[in-house]
Amino acid sequence: MSDSPRRPGADGPIRPSILDVAKRAGVSTGTVSNVLNRPAIVSQEKRERVLEAIEALGFSRNKLASALAHGRSKTIGLVTIDLSNSLFVDIARGAQRRALEHGLYLQLAFADDDPTLLDAHMSALNDERVAGLLVAPMADHGEGIERSRRLGCPVVELNYDGEVPSCRVLVDNEAVGYLAARHLIDLGRTHLAFVIARVDYQPVVLRRAGVLRAVAESDGAVTLTELFAEGLKPREGARIGQDLVALPAGQRPDAVLAVTDVLAMAIVNQLASSGIRIPDDIAVMGCDHNSAAWGGAVPLTSVEMRGEEIGAAGVGLLVAELTEPADTHSHTTIILEPRLRIRESTAGRSPANADQGQS
Amino acid sequence: MSDSPRRPGADGPIRPSILDVAKRAGVSTGTVSNVLNRPAIVSQEKRERVLEAIEALGFSRNKLASALAHGRSKTIGLVTIDLSNSLFVDIARGAQRRALEHGLYLQLAFADDDPTLLDAHMSALNDERVAGLLVAPMADHGEGIERSRRLGCPVVELNYDGEVPSCRVLVDNEAVGYLAARHLIDLGRTHLAFVIARVDYQPVVLRRAGVLRAVAESDGAVTLTELFAEGLKPREGARIGQDLVALPAGQRPDAVLAVTDVLAMAIVNQLASSGIRIPDDIAVMGCDHNSAAWGGAVPLTSVEMRGEEIGAAGVGLLVAELTEPADTHSHTTIILEPRLRIRESTAGRSPANADQGQS
Repeated sequence: MSDSPRRPGADGPIRPSILDVAKRAGVSTGTVSNVLNRPAIVSQEKRERVLEAIEALGFSRNKLASALAHGRSKTIGLVTIDLSNSLFVDIARGAQRRALEHGLYLQLAFADDDPTLLDAHMSALNDERVAGLLVAPMADHGEGIERSRRLGCPVVELNYDGEVPSCRVLVDNEAVGYLAARHLIDLGRTHLAFVIARVDYQPVVLRRAGVLRAVAESDGAVTLTELFAEGLKPREGARIGQDLVALPAGQRPDAVLAVTDVLAMAIVNQLASSGIRIPDDIAVMGCDHNSAAWGGAVPLTSVEMRGEEIGAAGVGLLVAELTEPADTHSHTTIILEPRLRIRESTAGRSPANADQGQS
Repeated sequence: MSDSPRRPGADGPIRPSILDVAKRAGVSTGTVSNVLNRPAIVSQEKRERVLEAIEALGFSRNKLASALAHGRSKTIGLVTIDLSNSLFVDIARGAQRRALEHGLYLQLAFADDDPTLLDAHMSALNDERVAGLLVAPMADHGEGIERSRRLGCPVVELNYDGEVPSCRVLVDNEAVGYLAARHLIDLGRTHLAFVIARVDYQPVVLRRAGVLRAVAESDGAVTLTELFAEGLKPREGARIGQDLVALPAGQRPDAVLAVTDVLAMAIVNQLASSGIRIPDDIAVMGCDHNSAAWGGAVPLTSVEMRGEEIGAAGVGLLVAELTEPADTHSHTTIILEPRLRIRESTAGRSPANADQGQS
């Protein structure tokens, strides 16, 4: 993660967390918290062990503690539109690690693809007076952000470039589309199909712009056909796959890029079950590196979205907003560049394409 | 999901949730809550719309509302040891759907594989006075369960059969091991290797017992070698894979069953990159259907753990415990049977093995 853009306040060296102190002292985190806030109720022996651990590890509560002394909890909330897309699990993991370095707990709520529930979760977390919120929606959610702010709860938006001024962490989705289409063109494919759906979703619009840019650079050597699916569910991808199978072989594209991995997987399964060879006849790829698309007939090339870094940077921005005086805070946007992840569905079967997974 | 065991209180027909009422009335869930709790502050026009929606949908707050009228929030917490294993995401999705039917919000906390953090999250959620907790640990956590109970917060344990009396939802992990080994034996494999690690983990012990049972049934026709990995990370699986590659071809097993998908994936990658054909030379499978193992060279046969049903049943038990008088409540254990999911790594490449994914 050393190549991620770093901004003051958004990132920094790893700091010992309250958990580290508790482990070293052999006590619970509650005891550490008591030593910091209500030392009189802790036995002298435990207090000394905790203070020794604080000293040895260089743990400090810094400005955040005083910023939080206004009745809000030591918890921050992360509300995501979904958890089925593994991007959001990655975001949560990165956010939690960074939060613990600041002595903050992360609580997660997810909306199961329902904007009404996203809104309800933001309200519920505000009712619990969390110190701050991270929100990862799929459509503009400025009203919820402004309502939280009025209640004294700062919000950082993740993975969505909304209307309301806010700190944000984004992936360059135009670059996602460009990288993906460029990869297929670099493999020598000249008849691209782009499978697209939900053009009201910001990531879809941006990825499409990137695809068009890569194709435009070919000066006419590469043709692009856009195939519009009716939605992002596997069944809609399967329908597109059937349409491709129904074409005479000479009229089929030699590469298919789907705007999500789930669509790409459904297409792969349709093509493979009709005897079309992937990638020999048609290379197929997705572009959002979603582990929900893991069950396909051929391991799928995709584009990584760097979720853990999104989460960590988001907490960095939230902590900065919590510790700076409101009148001097200015919002920051961090943009992360995506990375190509090549597997069998475009590059063929070879040991080099075996993803070694998490270590 | 119609074949899941059903018990009174643990399951039941789908009920309209507070979200359904809000949507039908065209108001926020906060307004619905106000109509129910503080009707005077809601405009007459909105109040009528909400009451019409409550009537039309048959929404009822039932006994739960009064059970929660003692200062605890309308939120239940789910604390999982991890989120990287997709089983826990499935559990969360199922739990949330059932919780919303009861007008309860689900907040999620995960421990990133750290029992100390699991404990800290349980305490933090208790500090927020959640109505109840679901906890999915990997080792006994009875102390945390008893502490929560003393604070008036009931706890249902998921996916772990702990020491402390409690309602529980479990998968039959002995059946997981049996199903997996039986599958390999049914394919005609006779020299099985079982890759095992962390024999202090309950699911590992139980899966092993199931494997031994399946092998014993063969009356000596099938041999079993146990290969002990040093842990559950991919690198430990890769090391086992290297050991297998180093054996003379005639001494290799013809089937490898790993106690987790992540180990199985690492083994697949090692074997495939050494030119060993999967499944022709060696069939390989995991047995915990984990989407973290999606990136391997060959799509992996595994055993499904029915996470959504675990989560839903857990909420059912929690609501039963919240609504029954404490002196008449008796704890219930629900045990779900696992299911085999066959893919290329044991059955070879064929269209029938293409998993159609989530729909």
